[in-house]
Amino acid sequence: MRRRDTLGDIGELAFLRRLLPRLRQNPRVLVGPGDDCAAVRGEARLLLTTDALVEGVHFEPGWLEPEEIGAKAVLVNLSDIAAMGGVPRFLLLSVGAPAATRRADLERLHRGAERAARRHGAAVVGGNLTAAERLFVSVTAVGAASRPLLRSGARPGDAIFVTGTLGDAALAVDLLRRFGGRLREGGARLPGTAAARRALLSRFVLPAPRLDVARRLAAAGVVGAMIDVSDGLVTDLGHLCESSGTGAVVDAAALPRSSAYEALAGTDPGPALRGGEDYELLFTVPPARLRRFEALRRGQGGRITRIGEVVARPRGVRVRESGGRIRKPARPGFEHFRCR
Amino acid sequence: MRRRDTLGDIGELAFLRRLLPRLRQNPRVLVGPGDDCAAVRGEARLLLTTDALVEGVHFEPGWLEPEEIGAKAVLVNLSDIAAMGGVPRFLLLSVGAPAATRRADLERLHRGAERAARRHGAAVVGGNLTAAERLFVSVTAVGAASRPLLRSGARPGDAIFVTGTLGDAALAVDLLRRFGGRLREGGARLPGTAAARRALLSRFVLPAPRLDVARRLAAAGVVGAMIDVSDGLVTDLGHLCESSGTGAVVDAAALPRSSAYEALAGTDPGPALRGGEDYELLFTVPPARLRRFEALRRGQGGRITRIGEVVARPRGVRVRESGGRIRKPARPGFEHFRCR
Repeated sequence: MRRRDTLGDIGELAFLRRLLPRLRQNPRVLVGPGDDCAAVRGEARLLLTTDALVEGVHFEPGWLEPEEIGAKAVLVNLSDIAAMGGVPRFLLLSVGAPAATRRADLERLHRGAERAARRHGAAVVGGNLTAAERLFVSVTAVGAASRPLLRSGARPGDAIFVTGTLGDAALAVDLLRRFGGRLREGGARLPGTAAARRALLSRFVLPAPRLDVARRLAAAGVVGAMIDVSDGLVTDLGHLCESSGTGAVVDAAALPRSSAYEALAGTDPGPALRGGEDYELLFTVPPARLRRFEALRRGQGGRITRIGEVVARPRGVRVRESGGRIRKPARPGFEHFRCR
Repeated sequence: MRRRDTLGDIGELAFLRRLLPRLRQNPRVLVGPGDDCAAVRGEARLLLTTDALVEGVHFEPGWLEPEEIGAKAVLVNLSDIAAMGGVPRFLLLSVGAPAATRRADLERLHRGAERAARRHGAAVVGGNLTAAERLFVSVTAVGAASRPLLRSGARPGDAIFVTGTLGDAALAVDLLRRFGGRLREGGARLPGTAAARRALLSRFVLPAPRLDVARRLAAAGVVGAMIDVSDGLVTDLGHLCESSGTGAVVDAAALPRSSAYEALAGTDPGPALRGGEDYELLFTVPPARLRRFEALRRGQGGRITRIGEVVARPRGVRVRESGGRIRKPARPGFEHFRCR
């Protein structure tokens, strides 16, 4: 008898039946997965967002373990909740997978999603599984925020800050494109040290949504405008400027870079300016709230760096280079359909 | 100068920028599309569901106009909200499309989704657009329901009802598989009359979520268990039985069929029993509530047909054939990864 271990062998129903009892309950979840809808406790103000990972677009075969695909699809959505100063509550997973996908891999993908959700206090409450030629994972996140922080609140004179470090994920993608799966195994002819490569890779594989600091910033009421850096600093700061009707000048030398970044890219600010998938928070603080913000900044563990200033004119993003010259940035960050 | 009319030419950002101002506002929407998340007014009890349409799986090129793809992706999700007795509020669209997709077609897809949502009192509040080898549209619907109607409430002795007619969409898919796009143009060698074909096709193309009757059933408190028929009567009644821990006997002769169905399939109950994508409501009514239900049934416009009875044993679905013999149904309905 043939072993039944692909989705095509066992079918969607049998797969879901095996999976559903494993999804744990949460007091906010009234009806979990397995009915036509999930039923959950609501809140006064909800945040809703959706984002997808597609094989061949966001990652290539061999770049991510199944758990990592599920987790990453959740984490990038949680970063959007963070960018509004919200608290994540519920997640829905819509998965398309080829019939030849191994059942075990799809279970691992769901397990990764579930764990990533739980680690951040949220619950996977529903999903859908369909056949597709290539794997996609589309996630919707539902969060709560009493006072959402918008992109549109920046004003000339505001200081611009960013959490963590920039450009690491872009350098990881560059390594993955050049060395693929071999990167995990290591090898003599790979650039940088194994530790540096591992550090960069982890930023791409499992982004860390900045939910804690976002919550503190929202509670303290010190932020003018906020966005997460998913498509690159220049692109996302551009969105913030466009929504706010302002310009911005960032200091290339001030962009926070990890030691792994420096090991691989030296002093080139390019990946920090234009690389996507950092999932750091980019926000502005008006001068009158800077003192209150500095107290909060000292009180929290993570790195927060001042990188520039909001200006009235010109609109859009300008970069102050090391020599002091201010230029229009060369290329935009990652954008779908144009990255050729 | 080259005309810029594919997504690859204009890019995701330019497309979204053109699209966003067109999405109309709704008083429940505090922050519409264009920020990291939508922010909306919540409710005490929320329904959450997600479902996807994938080209090459749910439809083939030429079967659906772009507006219809967007609308259908919304409508199948609204049917899940109906199946819980809920009211739809918000929708999020996650679209994957090849770079060669015409911008106009993608705009038409979004317009179709938006109109379908608005027609049912809901708003598209967010979305995502990514590159993908083949088109997919994954939709998440958020609804409200004070008392959700579950699949698990059926008890032996309950009567089983279904709204509308069954099997039409499956016959339409059969026609589309055999004649493809030619079906819309008509022709001498096509089966049935043009009117019959049109009627069947419209059931597949633009399903009608039974939101009004669902709301009345929920408000009247007459329903034991409810589900929508998306994968075929036998499969979905099977889900209802499994959740309720019961069996069910349906009368093949009682299954409601349209005149278009009869024109194409004669007296064969197969498509009505097993065909998917009907998006009708299937529900049970306990004997003590039948009188109250009958008053509601007479008072509403649409067809509701009694098709069988919930039994304690055997578990699962049985069909009473025209001769009176009771059998296990031959094949299950549509199931992903197993329809070969």
